[in-house]
Amino acid sequence: MLISLEGIDGCGKSTQARLLADHLRAQGRDVVLTREPGGSPGAEEIRRLLVEGAGERWSPETECLLFTAARRDHLERTIRPALKAGRVVVTDRFADSTRIYQGAARGDLRAMVDRLHDLMIGVEPDRTFVIDIEPRTGLARGTARGGSEDRFESLGLAFQERLALGFRALAAEYPGRVRLIDGSGDPDQVAHRIRAAL
Amino acid sequence: MLISLEGIDGCGKSTQARLLADHLRAQGRDVVLTREPGGSPGAEEIRRLLVEGAGERWSPETECLLFTAARRDHLERTIRPALKAGRVVVTDRFADSTRIYQGAARGDLRAMVDRLHDLMIGVEPDRTFVIDIEPRTGLARGTARGGSEDRFESLGLAFQERLALGFRALAAEYPGRVRLIDGSGDPDQVAHRIRAAL
Repeated sequence: MLISLEGIDGCGKSTQARLLADHLRAQGRDVVLTREPGGSPGAEEIRRLLVEGAGERWSPETECLLFTAARRDHLERTIRPALKAGRVVVTDRFADSTRIYQGAARGDLRAMVDRLHDLMIGVEPDRTFVIDIEPRTGLARGTARGGSEDRFESLGLAFQERLALGFRALAAEYPGRVRLIDGSGDPDQVAHRIRAAL
Repeated sequence: MLISLEGIDGCGKSTQARLLADHLRAQGRDVVLTREPGGSPGAEEIRRLLVEGAGERWSPETECLLFTAARRDHLERTIRPALKAGRVVVTDRFADSTRIYQGAARGDLRAMVDRLHDLMIGVEPDRTFVIDIEPRTGLARGTARGGSEDRFESLGLAFQERLALGFRALAAEYPGRVRLIDGSGDPDQVAHRIRAAL
């Protein structure tokens, strides 16, 4: 089983992915907790090109190719072997992030993103939880984290607002797979909502 | 006008690209001499992921995505602006390298390579010169160069032989655009053959 956590920057995905993995392990499942971009040695190297540096460092199209390269490596070297061994994979972001970040919020590239996904990836999670929070709150949290991985935060609040709209539309587009989770309150409250939805 | 030089590792492409650029400049043309993977700051960073490290570091599919990402950046930031300004662009490798390296010699991926090219690149050179030499000679030259950019050389002679066959077939596939150039003799002899074909 492949489960993805999605949402805008600073929405609490990483914390919730960890809490969900802990919960599943407590139930006796063998869980792999991973993330994108990254999740395999090669993909982590590509990650550095994507999340560091200036916002306009890459065009949305080049960015989309780099994310897809990282995803293909992650899929081949981490996700597929884990699923084959009967493990549960919980990933902090997957293809939905590319649909929204490059396909909707940085240009009207969704058709291109979909064709690239069909050609090179072709896999969807079994379940996706989109953590929905106010873009202003997310951006404040993301920026407060500091560090050099702030390339998408540097694109500003209007960008985060387009992302939030995109993720909400995604839940409507894939009602069977994607669940919108209220991200307000403390992490335990959000984790409880996710477990209830699962 | 966009001119590409192609061929196996160690065939003399880089030398010939430089000699061709010198010749065109001597004729009064404004020439941009560039190369792949690379040719723009972002693409040069992707280059390091591609030409260094172990041969099996990336699958052919991931490799193809990384080359296409680098090409898209090169096209957007170097080639298109130069062509728009009326300059002649001479590039050491372009999309034909991906057709042969990833599409033919590392697996039977040509259909995938073509679809990815159509979706994300969609540009062909006006003229392509494939420098044809004995794979054993090329590999010896490539290896003798030393340095850390030997990832494709590390895949061995059988791989270079598949590449050489692939490049010869390409000249037959695109007779209007691709010219096969005898790469034997000294660099001035080869340069003369290229100028005659141009």
